[in-house]
Amino acid sequence: MSYDFALVFNMAVHLRFPTAVLLLVCSGVLSFPVGQEKRDTTTCGYQSCHATKPTMLNVHLVPHTHDDVGWLKTVDQYFYGDRNDIQHAGVQYILDSVVDQLLKNPDRRFIYVETGFFYRWWKQQSSSMQQTVKQLVNEGRLEFANGGWCMSDEATTHYSAVIDQMTIGLRFLNETFGICGRPRVAWHIDPFGHAREHASIFAQMGYDGFFFGRLDYQDRNHRMKVKEQELLWRASDSLTPPMADLFTGILPNGYNPPEGFCWDQLCSDAPIRDDPDLEDYNVDDVVWRFLHAAKSQALVYKTNHIIMTMGSDFQYENANLWYKNLDKLIRYVNAQQTNGSNVNVLYSTPSCYLQELHRANLTWSLKTDDFFPYADNAHNFWTGYFTSRPALKRYERISNSNLQSCNQLEVLGGPVSRKGLFGLGDSETLRKAMAVAQHHDAVSGTEKQHVANDYAKRLAKGWQHCQVLVSNSLASLTGSSAERIYCDNLNVSVCPLTESSKKFSVSVYNPLGRTVAWPVRLPVNGTAYSVTDTRGKYVDCQVLPVSRATQEVRRNRGFASNELVFQVQAPPLGYSTYSVSLLKDQPSSTLLPHGAPTVIQNKFLQVTFDPDTGLMTSLTNLETKQTIKLTQNFYWYNASDGNNYESQQTSGAYIFRPNSSTPLMVNSKAKVESFQNSVVQEVRQWFAPWVSQVVRLYSDSKAVELEWTVGPVPVNDRQGKEVITRLDTSIKSSEFFYTDSNGREVLQRKKDFRPTWQLKQTEPIAGNYYPINSRAFIKDDMDQLTVVTDRSQGGGSIYNGSLEIMLHRRLLYDDYRGVGEALDEKSEIFPDGLVVRGRLLLSLERPASAADAHRPLAQEVVSQPLLSFTDGDLNQSTRLEFSGLQASLPPAVHLLTLSQWDKESVLLRLEHQFQSWESKVSSQPVTVNLQKLFSTLDVLGVSELNLSANQWKDEMRRFDWTPEKEEKPLPKTFEDLSVWEITLRPMEIRTFLLRVTFK
Amino acid sequence: MSYDFALVFNMAVHLRFPTAVLLLVCSGVLSFPVGQEKRDTTTCGYQSCHATKPTMLNVHLVPHTHDDVGWLKTVDQYFYGDRNDIQHAGVQYILDSVVDQLLKNPDRRFIYVETGFFYRWWKQQSSSMQQTVKQLVNEGRLEFANGGWCMSDEATTHYSAVIDQMTIGLRFLNETFGICGRPRVAWHIDPFGHAREHASIFAQMGYDGFFFGRLDYQDRNHRMKVKEQELLWRASDSLTPPMADLFTGILPNGYNPPEGFCWDQLCSDAPIRDDPDLEDYNVDDVVWRFLHAAKSQALVYKTNHIIMTMGSDFQYENANLWYKNLDKLIRYVNAQQTNGSNVNVLYSTPSCYLQELHRANLTWSLKTDDFFPYADNAHNFWTGYFTSRPALKRYERISNSNLQSCNQLEVLGGPVSRKGLFGLGDSETLRKAMAVAQHHDAVSGTEKQHVANDYAKRLAKGWQHCQVLVSNSLASLTGSSAERIYCDNLNVSVCPLTESSKKFSVSVYNPLGRTVAWPVRLPVNGTAYSVTDTRGKYVDCQVLPVSRATQEVRRNRGFASNELVFQVQAPPLGYSTYSVSLLKDQPSSTLLPHGAPTVIQNKFLQVTFDPDTGLMTSLTNLETKQTIKLTQNFYWYNASDGNNYESQQTSGAYIFRPNSSTPLMVNSKAKVESFQNSVVQEVRQWFAPWVSQVVRLYSDSKAVELEWTVGPVPVNDRQGKEVITRLDTSIKSSEFFYTDSNGREVLQRKKDFRPTWQLKQTEPIAGNYYPINSRAFIKDDMDQLTVVTDRSQGGGSIYNGSLEIMLHRRLLYDDYRGVGEALDEKSEIFPDGLVVRGRLLLSLERPASAADAHRPLAQEVVSQPLLSFTDGDLNQSTRLEFSGLQASLPPAVHLLTLSQWDKESVLLRLEHQFQSWESKVSSQPVTVNLQKLFSTLDVLGVSELNLSANQWKDEMRRFDWTPEKEEKPLPKTFEDLSVWEITLRPMEIRTFLLRVTFK
Repeated sequence: MSYDFALVFNMAVHLRFPTAVLLLVCSGVLSFPVGQEKRDTTTCGYQSCHATKPTMLNVHLVPHTHDDVGWLKTVDQYFYGDRNDIQHAGVQYILDSVVDQLLKNPDRRFIYVETGFFYRWWKQQSSSMQQTVKQLVNEGRLEFANGGWCMSDEATTHYSAVIDQMTIGLRFLNETFGICGRPRVAWHIDPFGHAREHASIFAQMGYDGFFFGRLDYQDRNHRMKVKEQELLWRASDSLTPPMADLFTGILPNGYNPPEGFCWDQLCSDAPIRDDPDLEDYNVDDVVWRFLHAAKSQALVYKTNHIIMTMGSDFQYENANLWYKNLDKLIRYVNAQQTNGSNVNVLYSTPSCYLQELHRANLTWSLKTDDFFPYADNAHNFWTGYFTSRPALKRYERISNSNLQSCNQLEVLGGPVSRKGLFGLGDSETLRKAMAVAQHHDAVSGTEKQHVANDYAKRLAKGWQHCQVLVSNSLASLTGSSAERIYCDNLNVSVCPLTESSKKFSVSVYNPLGRTVAWPVRLPVNGTAYSVTDTRGKYVDCQVLPVSRATQEVRRNRGFASNELVFQVQAPPLGYSTYSVSLLKDQPSSTLLPHGAPTVIQNKFLQVTFDPDTGLMTSLTNLETKQTIKLTQNFYWYNASDGNNYESQQTSGAYIFRPNSSTPLMVNSKAKVESFQNSVVQEVRQWFAPWVSQVVRLYSDSKAVELEWTVGPVPVNDRQGKEVITRLDTSIKSSEFFYTDSNGREVLQRKKDFRPTWQLKQTEPIAGNYYPINSRAFIKDDMDQLTVVTDRSQGGGSIYNGSLEIMLHRRLLYDDYRGVGEALDEKSEIFPDGLVVRGRLLLSLERPASAADAHRPLAQEVVSQPLLSFTDGDLNQSTRLEFSGLQASLPPAVHLLTLSQWDKESVLLRLEHQFQSWESKVSSQPVTVNLQKLFSTLDVLGVSELNLSANQWKDEMRRFDWTPEKEEKPLPKTFEDLSVWEITLRPMEIRTFLLRVTFK
Repeated sequence: MSYDFALVFNMAVHLRFPTAVLLLVCSGVLSFPVGQEKRDTTTCGYQSCHATKPTMLNVHLVPHTHDDVGWLKTVDQYFYGDRNDIQHAGVQYILDSVVDQLLKNPDRRFIYVETGFFYRWWKQQSSSMQQTVKQLVNEGRLEFANGGWCMSDEATTHYSAVIDQMTIGLRFLNETFGICGRPRVAWHIDPFGHAREHASIFAQMGYDGFFFGRLDYQDRNHRMKVKEQELLWRASDSLTPPMADLFTGILPNGYNPPEGFCWDQLCSDAPIRDDPDLEDYNVDDVVWRFLHAAKSQALVYKTNHIIMTMGSDFQYENANLWYKNLDKLIRYVNAQQTNGSNVNVLYSTPSCYLQELHRANLTWSLKTDDFFPYADNAHNFWTGYFTSRPALKRYERISNSNLQSCNQLEVLGGPVSRKGLFGLGDSETLRKAMAVAQHHDAVSGTEKQHVANDYAKRLAKGWQHCQVLVSNSLASLTGSSAERIYCDNLNVSVCPLTESSKKFSVSVYNPLGRTVAWPVRLPVNGTAYSVTDTRGKYVDCQVLPVSRATQEVRRNRGFASNELVFQVQAPPLGYSTYSVSLLKDQPSSTLLPHGAPTVIQNKFLQVTFDPDTGLMTSLTNLETKQTIKLTQNFYWYNASDGNNYESQQTSGAYIFRPNSSTPLMVNSKAKVESFQNSVVQEVRQWFAPWVSQVVRLYSDSKAVELEWTVGPVPVNDRQGKEVITRLDTSIKSSEFFYTDSNGREVLQRKKDFRPTWQLKQTEPIAGNYYPINSRAFIKDDMDQLTVVTDRSQGGGSIYNGSLEIMLHRRLLYDDYRGVGEALDEKSEIFPDGLVVRGRLLLSLERPASAADAHRPLAQEVVSQPLLSFTDGDLNQSTRLEFSGLQASLPPAVHLLTLSQWDKESVLLRLEHQFQSWESKVSSQPVTVNLQKLFSTLDVLGVSELNLSANQWKDEMRRFDWTPEKEEKPLPKTFEDLSVWEITLRPMEIRTFLLRVTFK
């Protein structure tokens, strides 16, 4: 029966049956997508574009504002226009003003981009104002571009969070404005380099094209010369073209107006003075300058259409200034046509411009790499922000994991999750906080300190809301009303409950679609504990003393002297509960460390050390019997203070510019102590008061864990430091290394090389740095050493066999990109400079099967188990184990999204997590039966959506573009086995709206 | 018959007959005042005020913008928002924005002040926008305050030009908006001190009250203490109260909002953040702060109504910011009334606030002096601008004289004046240029250099337009089509025509209402000339060599070696033409100077000199037989460079702060040469390369002329210099001296004294400086020495018997009042520093009759003859003499205004130019018959207006106010002998609209 429902549901949408019919089958979809039925009566989108003149040079003036969702001010300060002493910017007024001005002249156009701001504004408007705005949107006078909650950073974001933030932004637009609210172009005018995975995502979200403003200056110059500032970006090596093909336009002036034509209140260009009775009549001069600017620009683009972005950061707060002068500009420039001018100016939007490019029916050069790194000049590589604010970057990544768990538990726990035993909980607060955190001055680390604090505060607040939800949900799933405690500082061994309790339980929720085992480390003060699993079975556990580094980094936040370590395992989308009892709380000699070891190993891996230096010397995979030489140490680049004859550029939040290509070693030797027991073997290395590390091998792990602790980076020598760790191996990597793009597809990098132009390398280190979001590797024919990171970092492979990752940066100068602060993080807890701790996981495999290891490994770091604690004995009736899935998903399949969409439907994203070339085993298509997915939910209906869930998949139509030297790829749809049995191909993400009920 | 017309005309207006009736008798008045008939249907003015709450503290929020008619930018740059790099300000956008925002909420109010800007905006608007604005004005939502073309300076302006600029501003408002466009309050929030004559003028213009923002800080503190920040200003000692009584309110924060409540885009105060879902909700904080501010303010005012000026310089360019937050403020503050708050906030206007003060029916302290000098702190006396930019100040004064002549000749010449033989001429350009020049950063000298240049350029352009008109008019009056040449540089002996011509004529137009004789000096290269008058009679003339000082100051603009000097005479409002022929052009020994003289004299005066020093030693009036000792010399104060332990204040465009109270003498001796002939006796004194003077006695003059030339003031010693001349006499002036107010009534000044509070003198020189607009004098029982100036200057009497006048200032530092430039004038002609030349006229009389001499003398300087030249022989038929009047006016009467109003009517202002106490003879009422006034015009109708000509005199009703310790003065009207025979009482100005035709 549910099969029938599904079919009807699917077809109903497809055939556009009236909403009333839909209601019968899937009331949860009732409000989605709003306004679909309006399609034929509206004149928005491409229909609303102004006519152009085919024989003339058409200049598309695109009025726009670029509203950072936090940067120098917090997002809410920007919204309200608070703290204008820091920066004059008030988004509420921008939207007020633009609407007023659009109403004054129907020719005028405006695009709005950041839905996070638009949403704030919208909910403060009267219904009559909302009606007015809907009318403007329906007439295409106000158009949304991009439309995500923010304009995400591309170098330091994870695709999971990017898809989420795009989804909530586009959903708001869809629900508010229907089809006319759907942006047709992606618009990333400001991010500092562009990730291929972002392009892939945008393509799958149905965008017809993509525009941006920043790219390497050499790349720009080359493309201007060969007229390739507009191109076709093939953004996946695995998805079948044109699935991930994205037409990409590079804007002429970043995202600013041409020089001399900025009429915002933030600018000082001469207004058009057209009253002949007043002094300084300048119409002739303005027209002449404009014609000159237009013709110059046309020389470096292919068609007789050019775009001018008439706006910039937080402009249009007083839109009258812009429009009044633009109206005049258009009037006076076009008036010259009667004098033989062949320039035609018009109000336009990016989509209208794109439509004209599409109509031109040309072929476009194909690009398959990405736009990293970004340099705006010879010594100005924007590769510092790959690492800037490492703690915020980690907190953002954890928050994503928490949000996914929260989302899932909201679905699995049912309505009682939001309103339950522990009060009102929600996932929305964290979802929005995460969406804001994706902004290109948020997780990127390029904001002011107080703004970074605000992002973190929002995430913390979001997580508080989620904690209530999770508690409610777990109360329902476990049947226990016991209070749940969350310990968010376990990474520094702080958890008041475990530190003091003699008996407690820990529930481990696993947000992954397969059973996963993790080690757990709990701060305790006893020396012996018993741990039992869900079946009452004793679990091997060990107690180690808290390290000196941890004691220092936790700064009086906890007082545990020991850590209890054991391995836990949890079923897919489910939890397991472990009970812990104190056996002995006296200090014990068993906790004393050993000295410097020569080897640590488990059944999978062996690591050797030099007993003299305390450094690693080799890594062996015992299963595959492969060994590499491996030394690892910590170094720092001396940050440029700008005092340099070649360039005044400093290292700062954005820019990485070492003043020497040779980093300084923190210490050639480490003081070492080691612990080896049945659960874990670890070597604690102490390099300096501000650099230490633990090299760990858990008994069941196929990866070596390097837990690094760096900070407070000393700067009393007045030298800014950019701290890296470097792995030097015997791998013959030549000049290649590999990094992931937004945590997903892996791209090849080559030293001092760019695939699309002849690079003139001017910064041997900074110019070879790339973003690492989840992994990087080096390889040769035999060996692949993969490093999985726990956050986004910058890194490079400067030497053969070497891989370096930047961990922390402490800088003393601003780098002149607007932030106006040195990246010198301090806080109440760390007044002497931020201490950061993180983990790198090393995996040594044969190249052909390395992905089989690093893909799940990275997933386990991205989607970490969610631990919650209850004090004392568990109630007898407590359900100790639960899985939301009927069975583990196939290894290639990752459950990317499971979240409540509305009352009766949930959003599901399943993805194939392997690239097509990565693995003989795993890179195969794989089929999942959606009806057999959930253990507690009946799936009554299903409908597939585009990736951003704002369009039915089968209604998604994109412009087709023809690459140079290739056939135009034709949209392809693969047939599923049935409505329920859907097939995922490598790197495919499929998005479904499911109508569900509890079984 | 014309008598009848007049009666009907007058009554028609009085009885408010329908316009159609008026048309029959005086079609020229058809369009005036527009909208009178609307009176009963509008709700503007006091009717449109929001209700207040009698039991509460009512806070009147007055949204306003203060738009300088030029300051850091030119008036047109301000209008358009050009050069925002200098200062962000664009008036066109302010008005756009305010209108938009007023439409959004009928409660909102706004006042606009500067009609010069409003006019520019208005003429660019569509008729539908004009209709919208009329509606706003009719509903009292947009109200005009002050309403002059600009907000005039009070220290350096002449009443004639102030009345003119007010008249054209108010006329525009009247013609555009009718009765609802009439401002009810005068609003001088920014001028740097306040002149009593301004208050008198405002009273006579019908204003109900006056508000300003700046007064001496000691005065302010005193008034706050005694709650006298609102007062009744009795602004004339001659006019019968309440004719010149003006209720005056001192605004609480200058003209700014209270601290923390500035929501303009130019401010950075926190907006009201009232969305509880966003961070930083601050409503409670804002309300608390506001209540606190209101209650604090109420403590220093008398009633339960207080005013807050919500705006400032060029604010409201994006009015949404202000209004959005003010709406919220009003809502949230008044919401507290339900919690017991007794504060009531409302949108208001100055007139609505004034109405409540009037309703309070209190008595108010009476003030009879003025508000000069203005100090904003102990060492910050704004007395420098009394003299700043002396050349501009003189040019403005000459331009006024030219404008009055131009106005008169436009009337006398008839329509052919505007469109005649020499093309299109007009008086409007100069009238507007003059109106702009009255601005408190124009003639005041407190603008940037480029803006000063712009003012001068406008005046020059205006004069060009007038020259065409004057040529047309004189062509018509003379019957000659000969081209007329104007020589604007006669003061430095430059006039290409007279320098080279062998035969030419000069027409002397006299703008005064009585026959006047002046000396004329023409640059020539011959040594002997014959001059004949209108009757062909030879006129005594003499040739003198051009002085060394003149040769230097003219800087190659002319090449005359000699000056031809003779006396001319012209009839009232008429011209005389003199013919000049070269007799001899060879150098002659008669031109050689004599040495140092001991005496020069004519039949009226004798001046003695010390042959050793070359300085004057005494002055004798030969008629009255009075002699005083008199030395005169030049000094300079060393301007403070801010390097001072008491205060960092520098001398600058605004501030006068000598770093020592003892000025440095330029030279204790002058090099002297003298010339004595039948026309003139002159002693040329040379003090330094940058200071020289000519002491002159023309044969028929009752005043000694001191023609000073100062500059380039040397500053290579890095010391700014403020150059004065000081007259030291034997007069026992004690600590008193006298200065005029705006060229009209004279006020007594006392050293180190202020009439209304106990002065703590902190600047012994600057704190004793006062503006001198046309004259200053010192006196004792026997002698009065009056100095008539040719422009506004600052001066003081620091020592007994001494009078000093500041002539020129060259400064090296900005004085921190915004102008951002040192007052260091240079130009193309004077790249090494400006040279300024001017004249002081000394008159020695008995005090009781001194005014009989200095009143006409000053008028002759203010209204100078207008010379025009024609080359060659005059046509036989040329009319050589003409007077527009039937006869000279009585000596007490000055014809202040005669200008074309519309096609058939002219505006006439007659004034009694003596104060009631000044002269036994002249301070008597005097009667003039308007019908017998003009020689060529028939006066068909007459109607009296208020001083600003925007209201019928008999409809003028002003609020009545009761002074403390006095009866409330009742409005009094004096009866004229008849409609035509009007009587002028001391200091009375009467304004008439006359319907005229040519006889």
